[in-house]
Amino acid sequence: MDVGFIGLGYMGKAIAANLLRAGHRLTVWNRSAAAAAELATQGAHQAAEPLAAASHPVLMSMLADDTATRAVLLEGGLLERAPRGQLLVNLATISVALARELSAAAHERGLIYIAAPVFGRPEVAQAGKLNVVAAGEPAALARLEPLFAAFAAKVWPLGALPERANAVKLAGNFMIASALETMGEASALVRAFGIEAGDFLGILNSTLFACPVFQNYGKLIAEQRYEPAGFTLTLGLKDVRLVQEAALGAQVPMPLAGILRDHFLESIATGKPQRDWSALAEVSLRHAGLT
Amino acid sequence: MDVGFIGLGYMGKAIAANLLRAGHRLTVWNRSAAAAAELATQGAHQAAEPLAAASHPVLMSMLADDTATRAVLLEGGLLERAPRGQLLVNLATISVALARELSAAAHERGLIYIAAPVFGRPEVAQAGKLNVVAAGEPAALARLEPLFAAFAAKVWPLGALPERANAVKLAGNFMIASALETMGEASALVRAFGIEAGDFLGILNSTLFACPVFQNYGKLIAEQRYEPAGFTLTLGLKDVRLVQEAALGAQVPMPLAGILRDHFLESIATGKPQRDWSALAEVSLRHAGLT
Amino acid sequence: MDVGFIGLGYMGKAIAANLLRAGHRLTVWNRSAAAAAELATQGAHQAAEPLAAASHPVLMSMLADDTATRAVLLEGGLLERAPRGQLLVNLATISVALARELSAAAHERGLIYIAAPVFGRPEVAQAGKLNVVAAGEPAALARLEPLFAAFAAKVWPLGALPERANAVKLAGNFMIASALETMGEASALVRAFGIEAGDFLGILNSTLFACPVFQNYGKLIAEQRYEPAGFTLTLGLKDVRLVQEAALGAQVPMPLAGILRDHFLESIATGKPQRDWSALAEVSLRHAGLT
Amino acid sequence: MDVGFIGLGYMGKAIAANLLRAGHRLTVWNRSAAAAAELATQGAHQAAEPLAAASHPVLMSMLADDTATRAVLLEGGLLERAPRGQLLVNLATISVALARELSAAAHERGLIYIAAPVFGRPEVAQAGKLNVVAAGEPAALARLEPLFAAFAAKVWPLGALPERANAVKLAGNFMIASALETMGEASALVRAFGIEAGDFLGILNSTLFACPVFQNYGKLIAEQRYEPAGFTLTLGLKDVRLVQEAALGAQVPMPLAGILRDHFLESIATGKPQRDWSALAEVSLRHAGLT
Repeated sequence: MDVGFIGLGYMGKAIAANLLRAGHRLTVWNRSAAAAAELATQGAHQAAEPLAAASHPVLMSMLADDTATRAVLLEGGLLERAPRGQLLVNLATISVALARELSAAAHERGLIYIAAPVFGRPEVAQAGKLNVVAAGEPAALARLEPLFAAFAAKVWPLGALPERANAVKLAGNFMIASALETMGEASALVRAFGIEAGDFLGILNSTLFACPVFQNYGKLIAEQRYEPAGFTLTLGLKDVRLVQEAALGAQVPMPLAGILRDHFLESIATGKPQRDWSALAEVSLRHAGLT
Repeated sequence: MDVGFIGLGYMGKAIAANLLRAGHRLTVWNRSAAAAAELATQGAHQAAEPLAAASHPVLMSMLADDTATRAVLLEGGLLERAPRGQLLVNLATISVALARELSAAAHERGLIYIAAPVFGRPEVAQAGKLNVVAAGEPAALARLEPLFAAFAAKVWPLGALPERANAVKLAGNFMIASALETMGEASALVRAFGIEAGDFLGILNSTLFACPVFQNYGKLIAEQRYEPAGFTLTLGLKDVRLVQEAALGAQVPMPLAGILRDHFLESIATGKPQRDWSALAEVSLRHAGLT
Repeated sequence: MDVGFIGLGYMGKAIAANLLRAGHRLTVWNRSAAAAAELATQGAHQAAEPLAAASHPVLMSMLADDTATRAVLLEGGLLERAPRGQLLVNLATISVALARELSAAAHERGLIYIAAPVFGRPEVAQAGKLNVVAAGEPAALARLEPLFAAFAAKVWPLGALPERANAVKLAGNFMIASALETMGEASALVRAFGIEAGDFLGILNSTLFACPVFQNYGKLIAEQRYEPAGFTLTLGLKDVRLVQEAALGAQVPMPLAGILRDHFLESIATGKPQRDWSALAEVSLRHAGLT
Repeated sequence: MDVGFIGLGYMGKAIAANLLRAGHRLTVWNRSAAAAAELATQGAHQAAEPLAAASHPVLMSMLADDTATRAVLLEGGLLERAPRGQLLVNLATISVALARELSAAAHERGLIYIAAPVFGRPEVAQAGKLNVVAAGEPAALARLEPLFAAFAAKVWPLGALPERANAVKLAGNFMIASALETMGEASALVRAFGIEAGDFLGILNSTLFACPVFQNYGKLIAEQRYEPAGFTLTLGLKDVRLVQEAALGAQVPMPLAGILRDHFLESIATGKPQRDWSALAEVSLRHAGLT
């Protein structure tokens, strides 16, 4: 299929590469041109400006956050120039509020907005094994299947309202951050009894908690290996904020999200914001005087 | 081996049955005689009083809580009458404070105290697949291997200080309770966007969270199937208290444990304490006005 | 002095009336004209549109929130039409972010921005006994003294940076909301021992806590008299959000603010958002099964 | 009246001195004899052991905590030797559980148990201006009036059940600790905007919060003057624990108490436990990277 693709960070680049590998024709754009140039060597057509990538029947977007998404898609006039009937597929983790706004703006201009945020760190994206939570017009979702197949282990359909996919993505990221906090507090407790985090997490994470989130992050926490980051503390705080905004709009109290917010904030205020978000576990150690 | 076994609740009975099945000779006692009688039909010798079960080289104990353990082992004079050199193996989830007290009392009387609490619900105990976290004198642990083999998938040694095994067991139960709270808050959030808990948890728990705790309890939460309980809200609160006591003694702040305490307390104050502790998830729904 | 005044809610109207009473000449505007008409009967000149009130050397603004303030002052073009050198005095409780934005925009256009939010409920405003926390150019503050004197018990200067006054106002409102939560939890505890909130708060609030916040709100809580509201739960939540936004920008974790947020949210999700914010105390009773 | 008095710490000594000054005859005992000797110079009779102070129609007790109270009153056999009809007046801040136990034990032996904990720091006790919250048999309370008059600004009767006075005392101490946390978080917020705690608290504590708790502790926080302590962090944690135990028994969730517990714990784990409990405010500064 002919696809425009904008936003080539770690995740976007890996997804775009998989689309190329699967034989799709891509026109790519990125704010800093280097990433686009890299994909051009893999067969992509490099657009000089976002609008040049927007003329295809499908436009995929993986921009960094709400601000970047708003700037390029809404304020950049991209939606106004896109061809009617275009499928606008947003892969990024954005707020439910912006998803609603984009969906309404797309509808008004005769475009079809699909929210399709993904679960998986960069290496999972490279392996083409992401989990995609997708919501929007069912017929459009069906047409996108060959594209999703190029980079997803599985697509999880969530109905016709796009923002539902964003709500699920945010709730999922909340669950991951909660797992980090949980391992942090539990490890601090056993540490005070002379047990290494690795020994403790080794037991739990090979039995009751034998799943990727606990195993992968458990390893980082046990080894205190927080750099280089797969996903920074700053991004962790950003996502917790999006969770809290969604929860506020939907009137859902989430006390655990409140703790996460404070601990990310403290990690950033007192430490190195560029460390991996699993460094959240350090907060519990510090509060117990164990560092 | 010749083993005394006291405390035949759901867990104790299943473990004792597995010991019998493996060919060990058991003398059993339980406060209410029916459970002991049931094991007698499987080949156990039924003791009329705890002391009658205490004369063997190994005494295993699986009493309900600190109070019962203290009453039978300490105040009941059992430690004083036990033969010198006896291995006193406590399988129950008790406080680290009581573990220390029992260990000291045992040592004073020439006994060897082993803390060996277990992870696994009753059906896991019946299948002989428990995970045992064990601490105490290494030579004694080695001698106990054939007994543990009868009911454990694996034994995780934690060094010579018995209370370390209790700290790990409590930290593990804290992690499970945190998982319940996490699923509760996340499910309430997506529910406010029209997504069923089952659909949401189905995604997470077959990918990033594909492990027993999230899968088994996720199912109960999705189906709101809280009775009959495998482990009640009341027991959940008891364990959170033990976690908090251990954390207090070790000077480890655990804010997430504070939330768990309050939500268990609210569940019990406003609902049915005999429901499964996964009913903790209802609190988040109620706070959001979603019930 | 000649003063333009826009925003005539409960607070604005009372302040404007006091300015008139003190002999100042007011040109007033309000979105719904009735309030302006009422002040016209007291001697004010009623403007047909905001711009008509903006031509005076002093413009006072007491608009409802960030949205209204942004709409009228920034998007309405008011700052562009105001005469150079005008003192733009914002009495409203707005975000520190908007205060910074307004201050910069005013500076660019040759105006002088003064942040002067006030402490006090409507009846205090009527009595001319508000506490004003004011920040901005010192010479400008000095010139405003005769105006502040008309409605303030005292003016507390906070330096040249306007947003400091907003930070103090928000921190103060946080302290009030904390007092509500504190009285709520403490009253629930003693209630469970058979002691009425009024009897308990009567002791504390006539001794250690003998001050307006505890006495006035303590009375409302003891009598569960939450309507009509002096300040609604919805406004309470709005202010806690502003506190949290300020804290986020300044990287200050505030766990107590997190509890307040969740309890306001729950009050609104499960109850009557138009009740007085002291109804926050009901949450603690409900969680304890005491309602 | 003839009064036995045991427990002569800062508070007990000041109260006993006031009783002597008012003309009552005191027989005093204290674990370390120096304090008793000091009172002997003021006219008290110094008893060599607690039992020697227990033969009077009134016995007042101001022991440090549950452990000391239990040791002297219950395990020391004092209740068994006291004359029938004796009024046993416990001025200490103890748990509601121990108050119930003491009350039952006293009743069984024909004594009348009165719970009469006090509000006020040592200097208030010296000035004879304590607030006494008293519960127990009404006729007995009436007989005690002349004694209370010697050291109390006011006596607040709370009915016939002694533990009610303890619940009120604990709820009051919770309110004070909440005030400390509130001032700590609010001060950290404004500090991040360049405003000194003293300037901020000076405004609030001379207006809406113009009462002893905020004024006295606000001064200590503004000046970071945490030594010598009037009431240590360790004692603060002890009281929060008693609050939480009472709340647990009465099934009252208190999330704010959870925060207090964690912050006291952190203060003690990472700092100097002997500092005044108003040093709780340092935790908020540290979490924001402001120390």
